Amino acid sequence: MEILVIGGGVIGLSIGVELLLAGHDVRLLVRDKREGASWVAGGMLAPFSEGLRGDFLRFSVESLRLWHDYLERLKEISGRKVFFSQGILRVAFDEKEEKKLREDVKFYSQEVCQNLISYDAEELLKEFPYLSSEVRYGVIYGDEGNVDTEELMEALYVAFEKLGGEIINEDAVKILRNGERIEKVFGFFEEFTADYYVFATGAWLKEHFGFPVFPVKGQILRVEAPLKDYVVYSSRAYIIPREKDLLIGATTENAGFDTKTTLEGVKKLSEGAISSVPQLKEAQLLEVRVGFRPGTPDELPVFYFGENFSVYGGHYRNGILLAPATAEVALKLIDQGEVSEYFKTFSPYRFKE
Amino acid sequence: MEILVIGGGVIGLSIGVELLLAGHDVRLLVRDKREGASWVAGGMLAPFSEGLRGDFLRFSVESLRLWHDYLERLKEISGRKVFFSQGILRVAFDEKEEKKLREDVKFYSQEVCQNLISYDAEELLKEFPYLSSEVRYGVIYGDEGNVDTEELMEALYVAFEKLGGEIINEDAVKILRNGERIEKVFGFFEEFTADYYVFATGAWLKEHFGFPVFPVKGQILRVEAPLKDYVVYSSRAYIIPREKDLLIGATTENAGFDTKTTLEGVKKLSEGAISSVPQLKEAQLLEVRVGFRPGTPDELPVFYFGENFSVYGGHYRNGILLAPATAEVALKLIDQGEVSEYFKTFSPYRFKE
Repeated sequence: MEILVIGGGVIGLSIGVELLLAGHDVRLLVRDKREGASWVAGGMLAPFSEGLRGDFLRFSVESLRLWHDYLERLKEISGRKVFFSQGILRVAFDEKEEKKLREDVKFYSQEVCQNLISYDAEELLKEFPYLSSEVRYGVIYGDEGNVDTEELMEALYVAFEKLGGEIINEDAVKILRNGERIEKVFGFFEEFTADYYVFATGAWLKEHFGFPVFPVKGQILRVEAPLKDYVVYSSRAYIIPREKDLLIGATTENAGFDTKTTLEGVKKLSEGAISSVPQLKEAQLLEVRVGFRPGTPDELPVFYFGENFSVYGGHYRNGILLAPATAEVALKLIDQGEVSEYFKTFSPYRFKE
Repeated sequence: MEILVIGGGVIGLSIGVELLLAGHDVRLLVRDKREGASWVAGGMLAPFSEGLRGDFLRFSVESLRLWHDYLERLKEISGRKVFFSQGILRVAFDEKEEKKLREDVKFYSQEVCQNLISYDAEELLKEFPYLSSEVRYGVIYGDEGNVDTEELMEALYVAFEKLGGEIINEDAVKILRNGERIEKVFGFFEEFTADYYVFATGAWLKEHFGFPVFPVKGQILRVEAPLKDYVVYSSRAYIIPREKDLLIGATTENAGFDTKTTLEGVKKLSEGAISSVPQLKEAQLLEVRVGFRPGTPDELPVFYFGENFSVYGGHYRNGILLAPATAEVALKLIDQGEVSEYFKTFSPYRFKE
């Protein structure tokens, strides 16, 4: 089939790559490659550290389990390296957090995560002496990990084009829809028709479908620091050592599509980081970045399909983690007509009930 | 005379300009135009806000009184505009600061500063509603002011060259000294001789003369913010609205010539600024800058002269303020052989006593 993917973030690209591998002709419309949340995301694959539950946990864990093979295949196709670190150190700094984290550890170790090691304060500081002495409890979720999102996105673009996909720099200004069929997509310069349409426009999804997806602004610091160890995740900040730099995330702001960094954001993030890992005092600030998570009222994704189109959005804080499973859901629908149960779980109709 | 000035900061340039105006031939060696403290300085002309006393206060006030004419003449010669704002709002946020500031106000109003208005907390918040409600007491020192140091430095360079001065990009690697005479200055590429030598090498003064001048690292934030009013100066931060941006200064660090910005510095400055003027929360961070104040053990300058040379350094936090008076001292010595009393006040021999 001739397929048009609208959206050049991690979701659109992942789906595009799967469709190309299945033999389809794929064009991808992207307004501004760097605009979306994907490039700015921390890149944590962290359903346990995030404390997820229920169907969303199940979907997240399915996606987490795909990641290893997904990345190997992507590296093979693209010929690019993508930095990945295994394991996340989730820590608690106060009594309430400790209680919640102990519950999480109990819950996940029974259910879905065998590979974890928990530490009381003393052991934790012995094992990870760079942590603030205020730390009370911690756990290494060994199955979690972190991916360098910039390298990931570059590899996805390279893979997409190597597989014969076409990138078109265009804004999908308007879509012509007739009931459950898309007739045409109007770009700024051109019009586009295809046999099938995939929409993955992140925080901008509302424009075309009216689903309640809205931007949740996040600021993230990029610093230079010698720390090379696990990602440290707490309510104060998440601290992500990478090969050449370290990320400190992230604010959560209801500020529309305001691309400005703020002093308050920088203050909160630097406070959070230094109070978690005091040696970050000496880290050199390289950059402050802003991204827009595609949020929804219940913080769960929105999946939808019509006759010749489907929609994958609202991944909020977990777009990177959920890309492989989302691409699998899309591939099964588009290539084999198989409707995943997650179209029900993540149906936009839930917002009308 | 043929005069060689070593050092391209505000002190070296100011002296160079005066010497050119007096008819001398002046060459100026500068290793790296942007290296010194001058470009990064906040630009406050603030002897009262700084709480100065004694001979240093006298010298500072003399320099402050020169500033208006100094700037007018500089603008005329250079044809450049230099942003200047009149008056500094000095505020106190706790009891101890309030006590000290009330003493200062009493002292300065009797002695040297007629042009001041003091405010109790309530009046202060009525007059300056953008201040944090924690403010307890404040004063406008009307004779103080603030100069845009980047525009100042650019104007000084333009003026220096318009007056026929020659800028040479060279490092003064070594000087050949014979008792109280300088014989030669060895650059990296060339050697230099002159009838007279002026040394104004800021935080690097120790290299050639062994005087106890050392770098005091300062970080300063440059942000975009709508505030257009007085400079706000307190122990928490100084906040300097300029035409196109706003400066937030400054850390005081004993870190040698370490040019790195730090997360701790950014954190402290943003905390200080937001807790003084809460609306700065929304300010967009544009840049973090680092400079090296030329510090001395007693925080006073070092003036020295020999047969055919003189030295002006150690201006610490007040190099911009003190440039006109320092240039006047130098001009009188070099052009008229008149030895200012300040060579005694700021003699390096005081460190040997």
